[in-house]
Amino acid sequence: MKLIRFGKEGEEKPGVQLEDGTWIDITAFGEDYDENFFGTEGIKRLACWLDRNQDESPIVLPSERLGAPLVRPSKIVCVGLNYAKHAEESGMAIPKEPVVFFKATSAIVGPNDDVVIPKNSEKTDWEVELGVVIGKKASYVEEADAMDHVAGYVLHNDYSERAFQIEKQGQWCKGKGCDTFAPIGPFIATADEIKDPNNLDLWLKLNGETLQKSNTSDFIFNVQEVVSYISQFMTLLPGDIISTGTPAGVGLGFDPPKYLKPGDVVELGIEGLGTSKQVAKKYH
Amino acid sequence: MKLIRFGKEGEEKPGVQLEDGTWIDITAFGEDYDENFFGTEGIKRLACWLDRNQDESPIVLPSERLGAPLVRPSKIVCVGLNYAKHAEESGMAIPKEPVVFFKATSAIVGPNDDVVIPKNSEKTDWEVELGVVIGKKASYVEEADAMDHVAGYVLHNDYSERAFQIEKQGQWCKGKGCDTFAPIGPFIATADEIKDPNNLDLWLKLNGETLQKSNTSDFIFNVQEVVSYISQFMTLLPGDIISTGTPAGVGLGFDPPKYLKPGDVVELGIEGLGTSKQVAKKYH
Repeated sequence: MKLIRFGKEGEEKPGVQLEDGTWIDITAFGEDYDENFFGTEGIKRLACWLDRNQDESPIVLPSERLGAPLVRPSKIVCVGLNYAKHAEESGMAIPKEPVVFFKATSAIVGPNDDVVIPKNSEKTDWEVELGVVIGKKASYVEEADAMDHVAGYVLHNDYSERAFQIEKQGQWCKGKGCDTFAPIGPFIATADEIKDPNNLDLWLKLNGETLQKSNTSDFIFNVQEVVSYISQFMTLLPGDIISTGTPAGVGLGFDPPKYLKPGDVVELGIEGLGTSKQVAKKYH
Repeated sequence: MKLIRFGKEGEEKPGVQLEDGTWIDITAFGEDYDENFFGTEGIKRLACWLDRNQDESPIVLPSERLGAPLVRPSKIVCVGLNYAKHAEESGMAIPKEPVVFFKATSAIVGPNDDVVIPKNSEKTDWEVELGVVIGKKASYVEEADAMDHVAGYVLHNDYSERAFQIEKQGQWCKGKGCDTFAPIGPFIATADEIKDPNNLDLWLKLNGETLQKSNTSDFIFNVQEVVSYISQFMTLLPGDIISTGTPAGVGLGFDPPKYLKPGDVVELGIEGLGTSKQVAKKYH
């Protein structure tokens, strides 16, 4: 199943993308895609509900705006430097255990919303990433059980302001959580749709030119390892997102580095998880 | 006004602590202390409601458990090394601009709940901190306007596992967001109650011995500076907490370092914001 949310910013309604690409409005199901939904077998309940109600569900026009396909979660936990070549281009050592950081959830926007270059930013950069959506509370989970805690997968662009992230004092969060820096979607593919999350092509284009192109089989730490590892330090709640890191080809890695200018068009995609597109805009 | 929440974990109800220390149940007001409450002048509306309804509000027994005095916020943004002596004891340079990191909101518990020493932890440490509760969306706020965005203040113990925080690879979040590592409360004092948040005594005792004792006038970056600074990088939402850093006297700073053992009793307080007490417990 493919979960979407559509409508104006802040007024999104839940929907489903059908096999043929049609979007339907499932507001009548009576729930949104939030912690309670994911944590109480909502995906199964929704599938049952659709069996009886799909044909009567209103069609959503393709012109509707897509929002992020879930309600703001308790956290976005990101894995840094999880592809060897990207660690190299960032001038950092290949980590011996996952590098973990948080992204402010206030950065979440719809998959095709504009990305706003922050005030005083000169180094806004892109990062195509596979997002894992947690389906069941995860605390001290073994790798062998990790997949039982996954509800689905989603495309995420982990925008990063490199000067704020690296050149400012302290931790990375200053450059990771700026507003609009987390376009999520187009849809959450439920776990049953993705045969192997550790073998998915992913790519990103800037103004039509392919800059990132890799496969999640290049992960240093795969989905099971990452879910298990993070759960040793904190409880992952239903609806939480783990963003699994980006492959080589970010702006920081070029010589000289490339960063976003107003008007730039960023397109990205992951096999089975659709595509998204953001236009860079100046803060006004 | 002093806002409290009481009841079993996960079933907390909103209340108010009156001048004489009595707790009343304000469930009939019809709102909990969440983003919507803080963001829509909830404090003013509650004050009006109390004028008419306080005498009929049920009394809450002092034996009731206190929960954190607000619904889980979108983020807890922490300032690191914000007292000169603490930076020194941590072996870190005095920062030229605020060091900022996130604490997982899944770590939030009531002010007097047990603190659970995580599995595999040998370096669980304490940090008494002044928490600032945001009352109005804050994005690119000037210092002169920062106080207009503050709803109130709250006592916070920013528990930290030093090995997870510092000795593991990467960012600090592994050692800051463990479950139970954010006891918050007893109450939120609304901003009108605190004459000057930059001049409050704060202290922490371990098993009766005073280990932290300072005053927020020793801040390197005061409340206005910190709110304004963080808002340059992300939008602070109503109900978000900024934890302003801890003074000297944490376990890490002793020679040899002192860390929590099961049964240890941690008590802390801030002038005007009450006290809290946690007993250290082994993970089971």
